[in-house]
Amino acid sequence: MATIEQMHAAVHGYVAAFSAGDAEQVVALFAPDATVEDPVGTDVLHGHEAIRAFYIRSMSMGAKLFLDEPIRAVADTAAFAFHVLVEGPGMIMHIDVIDLFTFNEAGKVTSMKAYWGPQNMRQTTPAG
Amino acid sequence: MATIEQMHAAVHGYVAAFSAGDAEQVVALFAPDATVEDPVGTDVLHGHEAIRAFYIRSMSMGAKLFLDEPIRAVADTAAFAFHVLVEGPGMIMHIDVIDLFTFNEAGKVTSMKAYWGPQNMRQTTPAG
Repeated sequence: MATIEQMHAAVHGYVAAFSAGDAEQVVALFAPDATVEDPVGTDVLHGHEAIRAFYIRSMSMGAKLFLDEPIRAVADTAAFAFHVLVEGPGMIMHIDVIDLFTFNEAGKVTSMKAYWGPQNMRQTTPAG
Repeated sequence: MATIEQMHAAVHGYVAAFSAGDAEQVVALFAPDATVEDPVGTDVLHGHEAIRAFYIRSMSMGAKLFLDEPIRAVADTAAFAFHVLVEGPGMIMHIDVIDLFTFNEAGKVTSMKAYWGPQNMRQTTPAG
């Protein structure tokens, strides 16, 4: 089973790689046969190729992720709350999300599920 | 499918009933054949009788729940972060948890999974 430390490292690596727009680094966190369902209720993506395409698309707006600590890691799963900020002209979109990652013995992510709905999105105006 | 409003009401009702120590009110939120896994990785409890016994035991220390908003409700699931405070002599135990509730068409909870580990528990001292 993945250790708490492996799961924490993967979540921190995910947030950093996503915010840096590095799809390859994100994909490297996933097992080859991993699944992604984001948001829950939409089509489940299977495997590195589909996951890479999803993240390249998701990152195309320059979104940054901010972890709302702490990570809850137990058994083979890490649950974590975070928010997404996407800057547009004269506004910032804020999205609150909870993700679930399950892990294999090697510490790779085997499934990712993202929980968020329209009621978790709001627009704010930039400071200054 | 349960509506966002039904899921929000159930989560708020859960937090209030747990904090009030009202096991019957908590059990009433669950479908008769619901399951509870708290924390994830332990035995799954099935049905009202086992769920009632679990909550009576969980509430016996007078724990209070505090929702860390917002609730993320999507499809048939609500994910929410919260913390638990349990007062003891000269100390307060603080536990950070993420729960997942799935719902049936009637808006009753069909499964509850709680994500938290030893690293999500800490002791603090009461103010004043």
